[in-house]
Amino acid sequence: MNPRHPNFPIPGGPTLRARGWRQEALLRLLENVLAVGENPDELIVYAALGKAARNWASHKAIVQTLLRMDEDQTLIIQSGKPIGLLKTHDKAPLVIMANCNIVGQWAKAEVFYELEKKGLICWGGLTAGAWQYIGSQGVIQGTYEIFMRIAENRFGGSLAGRFILTAGLGGMGGAQPLAGRMAGAAILCVDVDAERAKKRQDIGYLEEIAPDLDTALAMIDRAVAEKRATSIGLVGNAAEIYPEIARRGIVPDIVTDQTSAHDLVYGYVPKGMSLDEVRRLRVEGPGQLMAASRASIVDHVRAMLAFQQAGSEVFDNGNLIRTHAKAGGVENAFDIKIFTEAYLRPLFARAIGPFRWMALSGDPADIAKIDDKLLELFPDNHIVTNWIALARKHVPFEGLPARIAWLGHGERTALAQTVNQMVADGTLAGPVAFSRDHLDAGAMAHPNIMTENMKDGSDAIADWPLLDAMLLCSSMADLVVVHSGGGGYAGYMTSAGVTIIADGTEAGTERLIHALSNDTALGVMRYADAGYEDSLDEIALKGIGYIPVG
Amino acid sequence: MNPRHPNFPIPGGPTLRARGWRQEALLRLLENVLAVGENPDELIVYAALGKAARNWASHKAIVQTLLRMDEDQTLIIQSGKPIGLLKTHDKAPLVIMANCNIVGQWAKAEVFYELEKKGLICWGGLTAGAWQYIGSQGVIQGTYEIFMRIAENRFGGSLAGRFILTAGLGGMGGAQPLAGRMAGAAILCVDVDAERAKKRQDIGYLEEIAPDLDTALAMIDRAVAEKRATSIGLVGNAAEIYPEIARRGIVPDIVTDQTSAHDLVYGYVPKGMSLDEVRRLRVEGPGQLMAASRASIVDHVRAMLAFQQAGSEVFDNGNLIRTHAKAGGVENAFDIKIFTEAYLRPLFARAIGPFRWMALSGDPADIAKIDDKLLELFPDNHIVTNWIALARKHVPFEGLPARIAWLGHGERTALAQTVNQMVADGTLAGPVAFSRDHLDAGAMAHPNIMTENMKDGSDAIADWPLLDAMLLCSSMADLVVVHSGGGGYAGYMTSAGVTIIADGTEAGTERLIHALSNDTALGVMRYADAGYEDSLDEIALKGIGYIPVG
Ligand SMILES: NC(=O)c1ccc[n+]([C@@H]2O[C@H](COP(=O)([O-])OP(=O)(O)OC[C@H]3O[C@@H](n4cnc5c(N)ncnc54)[C@H](O)[C@@H]3O)[C@@H](O)[C@H]2O)c1
Ligand SMILES: NC(=O)c1ccc[n+]([C@@H]2O[C@H](COP(=O)([O-])OP(=O)(O)OC[C@H]3O[C@@H](n4cnc5c(N)ncnc54)[C@H](O)[C@@H]3O)[C@@H](O)[C@H]2O)c1
Repeated sequence: MNPRHPNFPIPGGPTLRARGWRQEALLRLLENVLAVGENPDELIVYAALGKAARNWASHKAIVQTLLRMDEDQTLIIQSGKPIGLLKTHDKAPLVIMANCNIVGQWAKAEVFYELEKKGLICWGGLTAGAWQYIGSQGVIQGTYEIFMRIAENRFGGSLAGRFILTAGLGGMGGAQPLAGRMAGAAILCVDVDAERAKKRQDIGYLEEIAPDLDTALAMIDRAVAEKRATSIGLVGNAAEIYPEIARRGIVPDIVTDQTSAHDLVYGYVPKGMSLDEVRRLRVEGPGQLMAASRASIVDHVRAMLAFQQAGSEVFDNGNLIRTHAKAGGVENAFDIKIFTEAYLRPLFARAIGPFRWMALSGDPADIAKIDDKLLELFPDNHIVTNWIALARKHVPFEGLPARIAWLGHGERTALAQTVNQMVADGTLAGPVAFSRDHLDAGAMAHPNIMTENMKDGSDAIADWPLLDAMLLCSSMADLVVVHSGGGGYAGYMTSAGVTIIADGTEAGTERLIHALSNDTALGVMRYADAGYEDSLDEIALKGIGYIPVG
Repeated sequence: MNPRHPNFPIPGGPTLRARGWRQEALLRLLENVLAVGENPDELIVYAALGKAARNWASHKAIVQTLLRMDEDQTLIIQSGKPIGLLKTHDKAPLVIMANCNIVGQWAKAEVFYELEKKGLICWGGLTAGAWQYIGSQGVIQGTYEIFMRIAENRFGGSLAGRFILTAGLGGMGGAQPLAGRMAGAAILCVDVDAERAKKRQDIGYLEEIAPDLDTALAMIDRAVAEKRATSIGLVGNAAEIYPEIARRGIVPDIVTDQTSAHDLVYGYVPKGMSLDEVRRLRVEGPGQLMAASRASIVDHVRAMLAFQQAGSEVFDNGNLIRTHAKAGGVENAFDIKIFTEAYLRPLFARAIGPFRWMALSGDPADIAKIDDKLLELFPDNHIVTNWIALARKHVPFEGLPARIAWLGHGERTALAQTVNQMVADGTLAGPVAFSRDHLDAGAMAHPNIMTENMKDGSDAIADWPLLDAMLLCSSMADLVVVHSGGGGYAGYMTSAGVTIIADGTEAGTERLIHALSNDTALGVMRYADAGYEDSLDEIALKGIGYIPVG
């Protein structure tokens, strides 16, 4: 049933196991993140440590509770462990979660690892612990969108004949070659782990793996000359390969990185170390490993800065590589800009962000029908229409058929309402779950990623995601979650997530309208409060209940 | 109308200004925290920086919104500033707030001061920003309860003839002389600020102010010999007075401290510095002031440790004095125990904590009637009956008449339901607001105060207060808030607060039952999850929906 993980079937079909579709839906989403996850045997969904549940005993108790609970009850989950089932009411969420939140002065990688080892906490990543991950599509789209913004800003709208250098072919980073190719570029992706590269090639995200740097650069040269889109993998350590490319005086058009630099123990591989050695040090010498990773990141980021000096468009793609480089002594690491501020902020200021939906029937035709409806609803939204055409062609479904599209206030609600109608009238084979990435306007405080350089200096204020979660609990959402960073992200972020089920009922419509529109309303208000003109414009345009304080 | 602050009248009476009693109630609570606050002109309620709203423009917009909002709307407040008013539903909170939450790595006093200066954040203390503060009664009761636990544990149930040494006569600490006297002890309270001492004497909390240390000690000696309860003030710096008392070989029975040691800039006064000098340095040399405060705290805590060595019962009363002493080099500062772990944990393990209610009519008779009802409902609960008798005698009402009592799961709901009935049938002159301190079982993560030395080591996990807030938003509470520490508490804690209005309606009963019982249920579960036997017992006893995993 699931070629990737035979023991973790992709859910689907018309049969209800729980007492209602809302409960059943959340159960299927939990099953789905394991079906599409990196290492479901360990409950790992992605990013080395991002888990769907604390441990198997917790997983079992969660499943049992979802099966027995009623629609006016709320299941409480603390860092992947179910704690209680309480009577609430029919407009309350079925599930509330808080994952990996640690009191500020203790919110450090070392404390996280210690609490994790004791079995007291687990990291949910963004969408892993909240059962919202849909495989690579989300990150393909995000990366593609960034590349297209760069194309527009700097390269006359097209990346044909442009060279992108990046690294990291893991769970998320593995989307880069496909996104780069979809954007029309020639992209070179470095990963230290041959298996990871092979895996991306096997699923068709990566076209070729070059045997060495010279060959790789020659392949890129050819593609650039022919303005041909291509994706080339190279096995090597980015902390060695990047400096070597820079040394040769080669200047890529775009440079970024998606190694898991955020985690100096379980993510990044220091140069000169074998994978076996790293695995050994994770247990025997985590302190030594952290120091070695930091030292490598220094070289890695110095090369990125050299490319920037030489004229490349260089950006940080959200892996804290600058933060660790700065801690390692690269004073000007933050000369490299963050992708959010550089490319996406005007979208976020209008709460346009990575909205997504999953066909709980398991039937790909449901997504195709929603694609059609989406194109019909938003014919003039080129970000959306362009993406849907590409996604249909290039993006295979992984677990439950799913789609992602950047939509804003009112748009999300319009689509969701229509879809709920399609569930009700039998157009679709089953209910649909709506969700979004945590990297959304009102949902995330992440001063080195999402909220870097906010206009008013409010980067580090974490009130917003907490308000978002509280608001969603007050707005009929089905699942609401607050996540903070674990591993190397510990102390660097807090975010809120939400899932709402279009079950075809009228109550479902009410839920979708309230939760989705309040969520984006808060997003627009967060940016309005920080002084973004676009947000004030959006507030006036859409009649959002913002309170201007004079 | 309000002798303390003529410009900030105590609310009351039967006239509704808002569109419903729930909105009116929250407005009255906001008015009340200013009426009983330390410096309402600056919106300061207590603890030097604990504010009711960000600034006067925010305050005005909050008031206007409370006046115009309907019962199916939710007002969103971010660090004391109103952000938006959104349509939710009739079971959603009227107000949700997040105050002073800062992303972990940035959660430091320096960053807080900077954000505060920019007007981007404000600290809500625990109950100040959430409009739940009722004046000194809460802290009188808390301090009294601690003294009584010590009496039971160590002094055969009575503090007659016992000497308590403490410091700090501010907004909270000013309750100590009264609590000490109520507990039967001879208590000496040191404060560096003569005005503060005078103020406590004027309101009858402090009996006498001694002119110097010798006289003070002689007065204490006499009272101890006569086993007479007394409270003596002494103007001086605790960092000088404590060591001097220790040097003389005097060993008080109990030693603690409630100077605002948590804040090295706006709270603590270093020895050898005049108040004017401190005020100047707050502006001109905050760094220098922090260093001087830390150095004084070192001497202050060393003296406390000396008393402990000599046999005194010494405890930290929640002002982070040990934390700063340790940072200043007192390696064994944490040999001093924290009051929560030492005296109150068995209560918290059953979610017995500082529950409270306010008569929105302004009529003291309402509280008297509820007192009677309480004694009727819980005749065998000696903590409660004992306290009510003392409170009636000793504790004057400050703003809205209010009462506090330590009640647990089921007890709070039972009382609230009864009171709502008394509102409905006209026994009381008006609605009643129910609330509690944030220092409550499920509501606070504070590794150096509330959750120090948890059985399982989960001290620093902040999932719990976030779950509590989410649960309360899902359980029909009227106001829900998440606070994190500001000033010197920045990065040290996160807590959740709740207010529910007994408006005499059936919906009100439903709200009280859901919000109050889910709140305490989570509290019991938090301690059960950490391995406390009492909690598992309470779960079995009360049928709480805990999910045992494992
Ligand atoms: N836009 C965002 O904010 C965003 C979104 C998704 C992921 N991320 C971040 O991107 C990073 C990658 O995520 P992932 O899920 O792919 O992680 P992953 O752990 O699955 O993969 C990381 C990959 O990097 C490789 N690698 C490690 N060190 C290397 C080195 N020195 N040189 C070359 N390759 C090296 C590993 O072999 C692995 O294949 C993480 O830090 C993640 O948190 C950010
Ligand atoms: N149980 C708890 O957890 C709990 C409850 C309430 C308050 N607190 C803490 O207790 C402390 C006091 O609170 P507050 O509201 O009374 O603060 P406050 O600022 O109103 O008063 C502090 C008092 O301490 C005096 N002071 C400062 N430095 C001194 C010194 N070196 N020697 C003698 N006196 C000195 C000041 O003059 C002032 O009167 C704070 O840290 C507060 O956060 C803890």
